[in-house]
Amino acid sequence: MEHKLTVYNTLTRKKELFTPINSPHVGLYVCGPTVYSDVHLGNVRTFTSFDIIYRYLVHLGYKVRYVRNITDVGHLVGDIDEGEDKIAVKARLENLEPMEVVQRYTNGFHEVMQLFNNLPPSIEPTATGHIIEQIEMVEKILENGFAYEVNGSVYFDVVKYSESENYGELSGRKIDELLSNSRSLDGQTDKRNPVDFALWKKAGEQHLMRWNSPWGVGFPGWHLECSVMSTKYLGENFDIHGGGMDLKFPHHECEIAQNKACASGNPVNYWLHTNMLTVNGRKMAKSEGNGFTPEQLVTGDHPLLEQGYSPMTVRFFMLQSHYSNTLDFSNEALKAAEKGYKRMIEAMDILPKLEVSEKSDFEFDAFAKKCYDAMNDDFNTPILLSVIFEAVKFIYRVKAGEITVSKVDKEGLKILMEAFIFDVLGFRKEVASQTDMSDGLMNIILDLRKNAKVNKDFATSDAIRDQLKEINIVIKDSREGSTWEVI
Amino acid sequence: MEHKLTVYNTLTRKKELFTPINSPHVGLYVCGPTVYSDVHLGNVRTFTSFDIIYRYLVHLGYKVRYVRNITDVGHLVGDIDEGEDKIAVKARLENLEPMEVVQRYTNGFHEVMQLFNNLPPSIEPTATGHIIEQIEMVEKILENGFAYEVNGSVYFDVVKYSESENYGELSGRKIDELLSNSRSLDGQTDKRNPVDFALWKKAGEQHLMRWNSPWGVGFPGWHLECSVMSTKYLGENFDIHGGGMDLKFPHHECEIAQNKACASGNPVNYWLHTNMLTVNGRKMAKSEGNGFTPEQLVTGDHPLLEQGYSPMTVRFFMLQSHYSNTLDFSNEALKAAEKGYKRMIEAMDILPKLEVSEKSDFEFDAFAKKCYDAMNDDFNTPILLSVIFEAVKFIYRVKAGEITVSKVDKEGLKILMEAFIFDVLGFRKEVASQTDMSDGLMNIILDLRKNAKVNKDFATSDAIRDQLKEINIVIKDSREGSTWEVI
Repeated sequence: MEHKLTVYNTLTRKKELFTPINSPHVGLYVCGPTVYSDVHLGNVRTFTSFDIIYRYLVHLGYKVRYVRNITDVGHLVGDIDEGEDKIAVKARLENLEPMEVVQRYTNGFHEVMQLFNNLPPSIEPTATGHIIEQIEMVEKILENGFAYEVNGSVYFDVVKYSESENYGELSGRKIDELLSNSRSLDGQTDKRNPVDFALWKKAGEQHLMRWNSPWGVGFPGWHLECSVMSTKYLGENFDIHGGGMDLKFPHHECEIAQNKACASGNPVNYWLHTNMLTVNGRKMAKSEGNGFTPEQLVTGDHPLLEQGYSPMTVRFFMLQSHYSNTLDFSNEALKAAEKGYKRMIEAMDILPKLEVSEKSDFEFDAFAKKCYDAMNDDFNTPILLSVIFEAVKFIYRVKAGEITVSKVDKEGLKILMEAFIFDVLGFRKEVASQTDMSDGLMNIILDLRKNAKVNKDFATSDAIRDQLKEINIVIKDSREGSTWEVI
Repeated sequence: MEHKLTVYNTLTRKKELFTPINSPHVGLYVCGPTVYSDVHLGNVRTFTSFDIIYRYLVHLGYKVRYVRNITDVGHLVGDIDEGEDKIAVKARLENLEPMEVVQRYTNGFHEVMQLFNNLPPSIEPTATGHIIEQIEMVEKILENGFAYEVNGSVYFDVVKYSESENYGELSGRKIDELLSNSRSLDGQTDKRNPVDFALWKKAGEQHLMRWNSPWGVGFPGWHLECSVMSTKYLGENFDIHGGGMDLKFPHHECEIAQNKACASGNPVNYWLHTNMLTVNGRKMAKSEGNGFTPEQLVTGDHPLLEQGYSPMTVRFFMLQSHYSNTLDFSNEALKAAEKGYKRMIEAMDILPKLEVSEKSDFEFDAFAKKCYDAMNDDFNTPILLSVIFEAVKFIYRVKAGEITVSKVDKEGLKILMEAFIFDVLGFRKEVASQTDMSDGLMNIILDLRKNAKVNKDFATSDAIRDQLKEINIVIKDSREGSTWEVI
């Protein structure tokens, strides 16, 4: 590959040149959703960011195996090691079998991903689909001395691990501080130390999701599945691991520890983390009343929304910020994105119809370089969009006759714009509402018919009525004017 | 429930009154696809048939837990116990990890189900998601003496089972005949008897899909997953098990044997089997060259297809036959279905606009009874459609002023028709192509403009051009006439 793609590696806290382990193959693992409720708009941002990363790697010619899991067991309320499973709680409240909850919200998640034009991953493995492999990893960690069993549960021994490895290398936490800041256990848990985390939990009698294991009936700890599934499908050492920045600690830190407790070397070469979504400057949360769903954003059905915004408007809005920055939602920003998206798509419609000249005012090579430079700089979509808008402006100016473009430059521009707008940034053309178009055309026809009647040209007004009827449109005349409907 | 739903039970070869084990709950298990290639039109028919059954049970007020599995491991080429896994073969040919094959064709399957408006099941479990439970069932069958281990594989002992149970009870095969008709083994397999079947197979070194087990590294037999997943989600004894009739033997016969080897009693109360799809009287098969895909049926892109047929046309066509009869595809039948579907939907559009009278020529109670009688008679959709068409005819006659309908009967008819057409039969209104409508309207407008020009009424012809431009439609005049496009 001839490129200089650099990525910001959260692990080293540096921008680094991207060099795959086994080019042209690239392994990409992204932590997917826990399917116990409707997908959150912040999640949509995370998955859209990694969709762009996936798309750009594919555009560069890499053969990417993109694994994004579904967490359908083991994620406990409060993201801690004690308490109820998030999915089981939902199942109890809604009087369903946990796997019915999983099915419902997995379907919903897929619908939202399609809505925003995010590509499906190459493999979408589930935690419950890998219980046997998870048990095997626990056995291996026990064997290697980095875990201990107490009363049917198995915990990772962070203190022991810290003697030889750097627990906290990803999140920057120090084991000494973690140890001194943690509360004493007061006998409420079987853990030797509060910093330890569960690999396998004994299932209480009420616990719905349960499997037999060498330690009795139980279920896997939340962090385990990602170590297991990334290793199974991408190997013990793979290229990119991504997720929301809220997962950095403890989830990703624990993943690294689990992997290193099984095999030597760094499990992941590049860690990428996306930042949060805020609403009018505040964190989006149900308790804040600002937690609208992706669907509500599209329909406009929420007090904070002044109108509905189309999925591609939302995508445009999201890509106007770099994935590593917070993204603040506001109606103003969305409305600006709506205009921007429309102007860009209109330019793409105009482009093939531009007349060409001998002379060209377009510097194709410089433009192409700027597009690649933007994306090679840690997938900088806001810069890429600004470069694209230079071309959009150029297209409008050629159309207005102010400047000219050659045949070769026009062709090149078209190919490049299509590649970056549709393939890399993942936009699709939103069909201008056909209903609007029919309404507009019918208004013109009804006006013409009214004029014909005023002019006593009844032949024409009758002909219009009959021709409409042939295409199943019926006009109803009344004192207030004429209305129409499709029969 | 006040109804007399009868179903044809393949197990007893009789129509029986449907009585759920734990009303209003109903457990329904349907064998889903093996995801190693695009879904077959015959499969679409099977899943559409069970979609109707699911929808009608829900309509009757039952709380249905509908489980339809995804076979993503263990289904060997040739549907036998030796050889390669269908998914692994595909993975090797396409140079992919098996789970990438699974993901691609699972996504494709879901798209086809949506296309034909089949509802998603309550739970869609996968075979690889239940390896641990499958190993446990093998252990139980071994413990109960109905299986034996040889060289890392475990086989079900059909001969032993037949001493106490009736192997062949579902398919009508006799164990003596099976034994005398089977070829000798010639030492090519570890089976004691050719009628035995694999519960767990040792994985050769080249075998891609493999898990540790008490018998070494291997993978589950194809029949096992359905016994395991139906038991896990519906219990040891549940209401309805369905599938295509080609699955009756050996797949479903083996399921019954596996279940009975673990727990006493009949595992399933009602077995329902759908019949095959033929093309112009011949079995649909790739080797026959008549194996078009569901997508090709819609686009018309296959030598055997005279045109494309919309998804609801195909659904109408399928429901015109009872699920237990063969369904023969022909262009004539599809074209007739296209007309029928359109006429039915048009009647539904007319119905709310019908004028009402004091007197009613409609016998609502008799009509309602006929609808329910049809569906209560083993989900007889062709009869239901013919009853619906009596109402369609009635609607057109009221519209023509030949007969009358009262307000109450009109309301009742509307509620019932909507319930049966949309909820039970699962039709949806296919939007009449808006492009067609715009084309039709534009033709009228261009005609009017041409006439205005002929009459030297340039004010009108210019006004038309300007008004169109306001809604982004540009007219281009040439010697051949006028064309238009949306800009």
